[in-house]
Amino acid sequence: MKISELGEFGLIDLLAKEVAGSTGQPPDLPPLTVGIGDDAAAWPVKDGTQLATVDSLIEDIHFSLTTITWRELGWKSLAVNLSDIAAMGGLPEYALVSLGLPDSTEVEDVTELYWGMADLARHHRVNIAGGDTCRSPAVMITVAVLGSSPGNILRRSSATPGDSIAVTGHLGGAAAGLDMLTNNLNPGTEMTASLRWAFHKPVPRIAEGQLLVKHDIRTAIDISDGFIADLRHICEMSGVSARVNIDALPVYPPAVHVYGERARHMALSGGEDYELIFAGPADDIEKVKSEAACPVTIVGEITEGEPGTISLFDSAGNPVSIEESGWEHFSKK
Amino acid sequence: MKISELGEFGLIDLLAKEVAGSTGQPPDLPPLTVGIGDDAAAWPVKDGTQLATVDSLIEDIHFSLTTITWRELGWKSLAVNLSDIAAMGGLPEYALVSLGLPDSTEVEDVTELYWGMADLARHHRVNIAGGDTCRSPAVMITVAVLGSSPGNILRRSSATPGDSIAVTGHLGGAAAGLDMLTNNLNPGTEMTASLRWAFHKPVPRIAEGQLLVKHDIRTAIDISDGFIADLRHICEMSGVSARVNIDALPVYPPAVHVYGERARHMALSGGEDYELIFAGPADDIEKVKSEAACPVTIVGEITEGEPGTISLFDSAGNPVSIEESGWEHFSKK
Repeated sequence: MKISELGEFGLIDLLAKEVAGSTGQPPDLPPLTVGIGDDAAAWPVKDGTQLATVDSLIEDIHFSLTTITWRELGWKSLAVNLSDIAAMGGLPEYALVSLGLPDSTEVEDVTELYWGMADLARHHRVNIAGGDTCRSPAVMITVAVLGSSPGNILRRSSATPGDSIAVTGHLGGAAAGLDMLTNNLNPGTEMTASLRWAFHKPVPRIAEGQLLVKHDIRTAIDISDGFIADLRHICEMSGVSARVNIDALPVYPPAVHVYGERARHMALSGGEDYELIFAGPADDIEKVKSEAACPVTIVGEITEGEPGTISLFDSAGNPVSIEESGWEHFSKK
Repeated sequence: MKISELGEFGLIDLLAKEVAGSTGQPPDLPPLTVGIGDDAAAWPVKDGTQLATVDSLIEDIHFSLTTITWRELGWKSLAVNLSDIAAMGGLPEYALVSLGLPDSTEVEDVTELYWGMADLARHHRVNIAGGDTCRSPAVMITVAVLGSSPGNILRRSSATPGDSIAVTGHLGGAAAGLDMLTNNLNPGTEMTASLRWAFHKPVPRIAEGQLLVKHDIRTAIDISDGFIADLRHICEMSGVSARVNIDALPVYPPAVHVYGERARHMALSGGEDYELIFAGPADDIEKVKSEAACPVTIVGEITEGEPGTISLFDSAGNPVSIEESGWEHFSKK
């Protein structure tokens, strides 16, 4: 079987079962708190929990150098990893970078790339501790981030029927930015800048992730594949279903301005917003909302039912059928 | 300027200066013990030193799927990272894996790849803690390894004139294996197996790295670029020169058997042997030698002189000029 016949999640899941099973790993190691299949790996250390995550961005799969600047690319390649730590409720601390670069790459561009990482690293007090470069047929950027959590960590697998579902910030901005750049649209200086920013310079929700832990929320994921696809990951791993009110979705205003009703579809199925989806008791979510520095919006609830089933409704309570798929990396055309 | 005009080391060096300087990193972070430019990054933690390293192997740059099996590839991609931890004198503990795979990749092959990693991980009690997969035009394997050191760490920058230079194991086996596989030679079942193993299944010198620390050795590097190129890294970073007796080099016997005198050149300039080069007082090296489970051979000495200059001599003390370059990843054809 080709890997293209599995989803990305399917492959990771399969590997987790194959290798993390009793015969693959050394039998007598201290157990991981979280292994393959959540936003980051986690294991106990002396003063809390160590978190670690790794992600690669590959030219013409995850980005195009015809639209993204090297500095933006540096920002984004660190941001997607910090977002994984945020989704665990942790604090990022150290980053390691492995770059694969074609021979024709300009030294100045690589320097800009590192400066883009440094721009974001400075905001979150992350230390770029090490790196490695090698030749590659395409630009390939892999970042590993280490972080810590002094308290509970946020899981994908802990959602419970009755929990409210909420999201940070706005959705659909990244998909709108991608569409605008791909189709070379020019919706005016301000809109162009906003959509470009949304796609190329996502802001990892570090503070918000910690706020979730503070208020006893146990379940979160960051949006890389798309709202529905990532909510489905929570539901599958928690063995639950979900109901979502699509009229409640906080769609990114510039996306609405430029794309009208299409923006809602982008909010549901577009990927790479790097906002957090989380689930917990409604009154705990209200506490998060009152302290957060970004919008926090309740958009649905966790229900009993077939694991992974997401039902969409409008504000009047009518079921909505929407063509959606999310971004599964291996099934992308 | 194109990156191909810099060596691999040049680019990392430049980035280290650019980004790890005062304006790039957040100014008030706890300082790193070792930043960009050694085998691994290091920083202080409660009970010692945290070590972290990352390396990528890219299809048709670092390996060819026409000669390496997926299982061997899994072993090797973890081994090169464990070797970096060994070269710091540390113990590897956790590994994170990021895979970039073409759509046409067989699921069974990816499973074999992970099993190859698990084979090696089991030997060294390394926990494969997390992973990520994505689409890629070529197979791309990035492994990050976290480890620790309870005591001193081994540096590239601490060699002193008067130190003896020694190596673990044998040299030239990997280059001989590469040559054999590339040219489709068949030197007989046993020789073929030995050379193939030397190139595809390097054994990271974890125990030996720790033995160096135990006996107060301070300087080491692992051989990825080649004996001369990597010894030059030590000399450049320590501000010293070196004299090497090429007749003392422990050339891999199967390589000598198959390649005769050419094997010595492979030992000097071939890469990827993943043995340790280390420097220290001769009597400390003798202690290492008596306890080590692999050959330990003194091959030269550190001298005063132009930083990075390596002079080659034969056993009679006559200077030898040898065409050598080592493997600089960016300068490889």
